[in-house]
Amino acid sequence: MAEPKRVVVVGAGFGGLRCARDLARVPVRVTLVDRQNHHLFQPLLYQVATAGLNPADIAFPVRSFVRRQKNLDVVLGEVAGFDLGGRRVLLADGAAFPYDELVVAAGATHAYFGHPEWERFAPGLKTIEDALEARRRILIAFEEADRAEDPARRLALLTFVVVGGGPTGVELAGAVAEIARHTLASEFRRIDPRRARVLLVEGLPRVLPAMPEDLSRAAEAQLRALGVEVRTGARVTAIDGESVTLGDERIAARTVLWGAGVAASPLARALGAPLDASGRIRVHPDLTLPGHPEIQVVGDLARLARADGTLVPGVAPAAIQEGRHAARNIARALRGEPKAAFAYFDKGLLATVGRGHAVGAVGPLHLTGTLAWLAWLFVHLLFLVGFRNRLAVFLQWVWSYATFGRGARLIVDTARRWQYARAGERGLEELDRPAARPPGEAPAALPADHHPE
Amino acid sequence: MAEPKRVVVVGAGFGGLRCARDLARVPVRVTLVDRQNHHLFQPLLYQVATAGLNPADIAFPVRSFVRRQKNLDVVLGEVAGFDLGGRRVLLADGAAFPYDELVVAAGATHAYFGHPEWERFAPGLKTIEDALEARRRILIAFEEADRAEDPARRLALLTFVVVGGGPTGVELAGAVAEIARHTLASEFRRIDPRRARVLLVEGLPRVLPAMPEDLSRAAEAQLRALGVEVRTGARVTAIDGESVTLGDERIAARTVLWGAGVAASPLARALGAPLDASGRIRVHPDLTLPGHPEIQVVGDLARLARADGTLVPGVAPAAIQEGRHAARNIARALRGEPKAAFAYFDKGLLATVGRGHAVGAVGPLHLTGTLAWLAWLFVHLLFLVGFRNRLAVFLQWVWSYATFGRGARLIVDTARRWQYARAGERGLEELDRPAARPPGEAPAALPADHHPE
Repeated sequence: MAEPKRVVVVGAGFGGLRCARDLARVPVRVTLVDRQNHHLFQPLLYQVATAGLNPADIAFPVRSFVRRQKNLDVVLGEVAGFDLGGRRVLLADGAAFPYDELVVAAGATHAYFGHPEWERFAPGLKTIEDALEARRRILIAFEEADRAEDPARRLALLTFVVVGGGPTGVELAGAVAEIARHTLASEFRRIDPRRARVLLVEGLPRVLPAMPEDLSRAAEAQLRALGVEVRTGARVTAIDGESVTLGDERIAARTVLWGAGVAASPLARALGAPLDASGRIRVHPDLTLPGHPEIQVVGDLARLARADGTLVPGVAPAAIQEGRHAARNIARALRGEPKAAFAYFDKGLLATVGRGHAVGAVGPLHLTGTLAWLAWLFVHLLFLVGFRNRLAVFLQWVWSYATFGRGARLIVDTARRWQYARAGERGLEELDRPAARPPGEAPAALPADHHPE
Repeated sequence: MAEPKRVVVVGAGFGGLRCARDLARVPVRVTLVDRQNHHLFQPLLYQVATAGLNPADIAFPVRSFVRRQKNLDVVLGEVAGFDLGGRRVLLADGAAFPYDELVVAAGATHAYFGHPEWERFAPGLKTIEDALEARRRILIAFEEADRAEDPARRLALLTFVVVGGGPTGVELAGAVAEIARHTLASEFRRIDPRRARVLLVEGLPRVLPAMPEDLSRAAEAQLRALGVEVRTGARVTAIDGESVTLGDERIAARTVLWGAGVAASPLARALGAPLDASGRIRVHPDLTLPGHPEIQVVGDLARLARADGTLVPGVAPAAIQEGRHAARNIARALRGEPKAAFAYFDKGLLATVGRGHAVGAVGPLHLTGTLAWLAWLFVHLLFLVGFRNRLAVFLQWVWSYATFGRGARLIVDTARRWQYARAGERGLEELDRPAARPPGEAPAALPADHHPE
């Protein structure tokens, strides 16, 4: 018997994981490479950022998920590039994985519209680390406002700007407003969290521009009812850590969250194929890379037009369908058949605005309010990987709904605690000395001779 | 009516939180200062480190816990020192809080026996951040071992050394062994996690030296049954990130966890009082600081002898009792009565070794095995703050027991993701440039001209 063909799948998101799983009964050896050890259910990431869920509720160890799939090997590693001629995936640590068939599902990252310097002031929301950082900033802002003596500083600390009126931005803005109005309402002595300003900024004329117009209007009304100031047709021209500038209007705001532009993973460039303005790869209708029928691209990294000229959207169902299709294509190739064109089945769009409110478009059906919200809950629970996660999320939602509380109001600052030690490991010796100070203690509080060295 | 007296409580651990809560009906104004926004249930921290529990399961927002206590104000801040003459607590950010009565419950940190340089190689376990770092190191070691080509390197990656044979060390070693033998057993293709070595190192002749001898022997037997190599009477002489040296024996080990020496918070020194070798304050029997009847010290920071000459142990029940006593003493002082001496009521000691195994000494009663384990489960659930946490922990334990799984196997590396941005905020401009690179992407994978700046 001949050696089985080798398939490498890059990325364990919705598309890559689905593809790898669907290859279980195909006679190939599969290597699934991801730089995280977990599959992340990104649609609920904003709830981690807003302290409603634990990271582990929406992240599942990839290894555990596929433990019974004997033809699959999981590799935790960072893909640095490709040797397209030699058909090898190159890892940052120097390792190389040869392939006969390659599926690239590396996903998307944020785009700051040519202003990468904004990132530090306005974290995006793509990873668990991003979500914990956003959570830290939101919760710390209220704490610092409570301590602030200067009214202007207090105002800036109690002003939250969410940039981007897509589903992520709408969900974030709604959740921050709920934290201020309900969760924290009675917990401070010197500030009234209910008076916090939450702004949602969108460059286009309406929020949720991918939705039908009536649903955009409904979502905007729901946001306003929650106390969110919705600024449509407004462009961010500057962000500096103290303020956000919209056109000529400078708004003092210490906390800015980024839910705007999406850019394909920089790995797209490494494939040497034609990219669109967002860095996505213009793939053939059968998902293959131009000139490379052995390479398929799925998920947010692929730019694919539908029959009606619109693009396949960058949403989880599309990535899952493409991943499934890529696996089928590999089976076809093994049988000597050509790869087939992908057809997207549009299941509709759902976006939640806050407690009891959502909007959804499912074919000709437009849903708003409680019904849409229940549909949203159901769909998200259904798609959560792993029974345990589903149960954990469900129980926390019940608890939060009943109490207005948020179960994960934890400020975790791994960065502050361990950055010195880690930088030291990597040889940044100028940061070496602080590694010796005792855990969690600020240098200011310590005499210089603290350690008996 | 006169202005109410001001009480400042430093630290929202077991002692400080209990004291602040008990002052609810005393006519004082209380300020509770902590540098974290959460009260941490430290006895279960090792379960966060070993991926069994979520951080938020054992941490509860202080503000939320005391929201209904009208005479209490919570301050998130870092205490830098004290103005004992002016009766003010000084914060690192320059703020000062005046007091009439002060309770210092700043707790303990790790001690590295005069080797602070070991910390980066052997994280301790006092904060959520520590636990997440330990978890990251444990899980990453298996991943790297799976990738390692060199057998010696693989062996070092699969060798885990826990330093310190007290309850934390015993619990950690048992849990790491269970991860290797059960949770990860079938999840790797190139390594067999069951062959991982787990060593527990203790300088004294037996583990759990605070327990009766028969229980130490029982715990050691249970550890060996789990596959842990117990090295008693062994002293660590070097740790360098590649190995641990015990006396003259060098053991190649990449993952070292520190459960040994405890040192009182460096704040003890700021009180200008006589300290013992561990940095604890030698307080009067009524918990007051020598020379300062208006200052009480409770919890791990206080060194207090019992009538029989033994010390009050550094455990949660002792801290809680002292916190309660300090609140009563303040009420006495308001009535013009002198402060009373503290009497410790010993409820016994419990330590768990692993799934279904624990040891406990309650008065003359010595428990081992399943019975001790059930007692341990019951006591820890009972003392967990907040009903929601209790339920969440209980459900996860049931799930873990039934499946041998661990629900929180998440490698979260906030440090890597955000250290650059944070360092930049603080003005370390030499770290400024990397902040501009896109999220989560390794520099190696990027062309230098990546951003259209």
